[in-house]
Amino acid sequence: MAKPIRLSHVAHDGKARMVSVSEKEKTHRLAEATGMVMLGEAAFALVVKNKSKKGDILAVAKIAGIMAAKNTAGLVPLCHPIELTKIDIWFQLDRGKKAVHIFSAVEAFAKTGVEMEAITAVSIAAVTVYDMAKSVDKGITISNIQLLKKSGGKSGDYIRRTKPRN
Amino acid sequence: MAKPIRLSHVAHDGKARMVSVSEKEKTHRLAEATGMVMLGEAAFALVVKNKSKKGDILAVAKIAGIMAAKNTAGLVPLCHPIELTKIDIWFQLDRGKKAVHIFSAVEAFAKTGVEMEAITAVSIAAVTVYDMAKSVDKGITISNIQLLKKSGGKSGDYIRRTKPRN
Amino acid sequence: MAKPIRLSHVAHDGKARMVSVSEKEKTHRLAEATGMVMLGEAAFALVVKNKSKKGDILAVAKIAGIMAAKNTAGLVPLCHPIELTKIDIWFQLDRGKKAVHIFSAVEAFAKTGVEMEAITAVSIAAVTVYDMAKSVDKGITISNIQLLKKSGGKSGDYIRRTKPRN
Amino acid sequence: MAKPIRLSHVAHDGKARMVSVSEKEKTHRLAEATGMVMLGEAAFALVVKNKSKKGDILAVAKIAGIMAAKNTAGLVPLCHPIELTKIDIWFQLDRGKKAVHIFSAVEAFAKTGVEMEAITAVSIAAVTVYDMAKSVDKGITISNIQLLKKSGGKSGDYIRRTKPRN
Amino acid sequence: MAKPIRLSHVAHDGKARMVSVSEKEKTHRLAEATGMVMLGEAAFALVVKNKSKKGDILAVAKIAGIMAAKNTAGLVPLCHPIELTKIDIWFQLDRGKKAVHIFSAVEAFAKTGVEMEAITAVSIAAVTVYDMAKSVDKGITISNIQLLKKSGGKSGDYIRRTKPRN
Amino acid sequence: MAKPIRLSHVAHDGKARMVSVSEKEKTHRLAEATGMVMLGEAAFALVVKNKSKKGDILAVAKIAGIMAAKNTAGLVPLCHPIELTKIDIWFQLDRGKKAVHIFSAVEAFAKTGVEMEAITAVSIAAVTVYDMAKSVDKGITISNIQLLKKSGGKSGDYIRRTKPRN
Repeated sequence: MAKPIRLSHVAHDGKARMVSVSEKEKTHRLAEATGMVMLGEAAFALVVKNKSKKGDILAVAKIAGIMAAKNTAGLVPLCHPIELTKIDIWFQLDRGKKAVHIFSAVEAFAKTGVEMEAITAVSIAAVTVYDMAKSVDKGITISNIQLLKKSGGKSGDYIRRTKPRN
Repeated sequence: MAKPIRLSHVAHDGKARMVSVSEKEKTHRLAEATGMVMLGEAAFALVVKNKSKKGDILAVAKIAGIMAAKNTAGLVPLCHPIELTKIDIWFQLDRGKKAVHIFSAVEAFAKTGVEMEAITAVSIAAVTVYDMAKSVDKGITISNIQLLKKSGGKSGDYIRRTKPRN
Repeated sequence: MAKPIRLSHVAHDGKARMVSVSEKEKTHRLAEATGMVMLGEAAFALVVKNKSKKGDILAVAKIAGIMAAKNTAGLVPLCHPIELTKIDIWFQLDRGKKAVHIFSAVEAFAKTGVEMEAITAVSIAAVTVYDMAKSVDKGITISNIQLLKKSGGKSGDYIRRTKPRN
Repeated sequence: MAKPIRLSHVAHDGKARMVSVSEKEKTHRLAEATGMVMLGEAAFALVVKNKSKKGDILAVAKIAGIMAAKNTAGLVPLCHPIELTKIDIWFQLDRGKKAVHIFSAVEAFAKTGVEMEAITAVSIAAVTVYDMAKSVDKGITISNIQLLKKSGGKSGDYIRRTKPRN
Repeated sequence: MAKPIRLSHVAHDGKARMVSVSEKEKTHRLAEATGMVMLGEAAFALVVKNKSKKGDILAVAKIAGIMAAKNTAGLVPLCHPIELTKIDIWFQLDRGKKAVHIFSAVEAFAKTGVEMEAITAVSIAAVTVYDMAKSVDKGITISNIQLLKKSGGKSGDYIRRTKPRN
Repeated sequence: MAKPIRLSHVAHDGKARMVSVSEKEKTHRLAEATGMVMLGEAAFALVVKNKSKKGDILAVAKIAGIMAAKNTAGLVPLCHPIELTKIDIWFQLDRGKKAVHIFSAVEAFAKTGVEMEAITAVSIAAVTVYDMAKSVDKGITISNIQLLKKSGGKSGDYIRRTKPRN
């Protein structure tokens, strides 16, 4: 009979709990995530111009994302602290959607996965892009924050195949 | 002639900068933001069940969002520190989209607006919902994080009227 | 008819909430708290000796308490951030109880009281004393953390008169 | 001849020091701690009612305690940073004493013990209960924070047998 | 008779204390500080090249300095928390000394001065430059961190006139 | 042909990056750093007097430095989080230069070196000495922050031999 589907962070009585990873082995963990900031025409043009002038906007967002990844266990209550060994964040400008796509890749040798670090990195990088563009357009929207890839846990590797929920 | 549109966090040479608010008066500031976590069928059912049993999932996400709002200036590099006077976060379950909608309202008596605090609160609350549901579905997606309302600044009040960018 | 007694941090449906202090005036706020660390004979003797030699134990605990007071809103989820104007922490050695009594006094010009800052300062100072003495005795106990005095809010001034709950 | 009893965090000249754990092996570490919040009659009744309605009070305190445990090395000056693998916090309502008993259990695979993480978790969970009940009663008292159990270090396992110091 | 010179952060018995600023009025405060990182020939050449290519090194150091300024009260034990209204950081490359000069300007409307925020900003920006260049030269040295200017307190304005202590 | 000298934290396009240490082995790491605070005559005399009375100034600076070392990855954007196993900080009063020399030693069993932790510890300890003495002299200068020694990485051990850059 199939094991019933459960939320690992929730006990049988509905109470939140931190999953114990005491018994797990350390393995090499990797996760990649993405998200986008839909800027609208005016703000997008200014970000493009800033990038072409090699301005700082995306560097600031990158630093904010890296620092947030390191602080994931301080932000997300039930996450475990992890000694990350690599955090990378990069950007793609999408002229069609007037959007910045944000990508993160995080690695560690750890007892638990690093997808939350990848998701948190993208989220705070996106919030930082929002912050720097908000004076131009109050309709800026952050969307499609999701996991792209994950490897190293006993639940098996994962690569997103399906079209994103949108 | 119209004043050219500019990114307030970017200097003429493209460098990042923190806007000076030294000369601004303190006024009552309010901002509301929203965002959603598209959970997929199985995870949504478990969140609904947890809520109906008055479990902790949404309480944990709420606390994470409130604490993140207070920490906005520590997360978003060019934000000013602000003594917030109110932070509220609430949720709506959307059976059609299998999604949790997250709402935040933030207030302060301050020299600068609190929209980043509202956006940050929603983002980290969403990331926390993601964390608690991720064991069930790796396709969970955070979307439509955006400002709903803002008042108190000299740039005038704002209420979102248009359909969200989606 | 008397107003029913309620927990201000709890909404009618039992959900946690941060109290809004948006409408409150800033006034001068003061709070004093106390707590004790019952060390047992051996650890108490070593703390006494360290103090007589003007060693660092109580200085370390003081610094930890001061820093915790400044971080109260980062530790206690529903506390508001407050610009504290004074934090003091001092100690009394109690040879009868083999205990260190810890006292804190906190001030601010703020919309809400500072008792949580005073209580947090004492708690973390006590935890720090515990840390420095724990190698000698595993039975060390932190007790009687409580408010001594409070002034400045509209709920009126408070001075503890009754014997502590013990 | 017996080795003289010493405070491990204090050097021969009375100066504070962080103990070096460089030479120690990593072993599985566990610690359990407890503490209580004496609420008085009115606040206790409201916490009981909140719990019976499955309200949020204890969930908020639990989250605060878990996050504090992860932040122990940022709060207690001479503690080492540790990658915790499990943190659990639970509560017992004591109708006789009108008190909430708080329990924590912390685990790690580490070079040093995790009792300070367990003690810090209980302390901040207790401070958070205090915060949520303080509007009803200014005489609330936090007491009896102490270690219950500890295993994994070379100093041997420990289980509290004696009556708490009270 | 002249008032004896005293350290304001030290009580008569030599104990550390946080100065009370409860009785002080809020005034507009400004402080500027500077410091330098002596890189040596090879690392300096690489920083120059990175800057001419509009690379990120100085942007990263700037963000680190801004975030540290906001966190001053969390780093320097006896500093008061302050709502900063402006933080700016800029750089000068010194081909003679093979050094980067770092400058900071900080403002607030506050009861106490902001020189520690300016000094902390420069220090952490310098440490960040060091970090990014350290793979090339282990002899890198941070020097001459000092106050340039200060206004707004009752102790009067200050502008550095004398040659730096070097 | 010699490998060209490069900044490890900078990619080929000049963008900042966090170095991946995923493939590195954990080894025992050690780093020692130093720095000095030039106090001027009056402030130096007061620090000497405070030390002779076994006052708290240097204890406060030590605690600040230890806590900063643990927080290095939260302060310096491209640093990896590391479980430090030892942090020590000590001081030397230099009557000739009217200066306090600060020394730090940091250890870990880690995939990357701990020199940034040693440098950060010295920097924040120096900033804290500055803070405590600034009321007496606005010309105080922090200088000569540099690495003294490093071992454990594959780039080989390092001991400073040359005269400091000054």
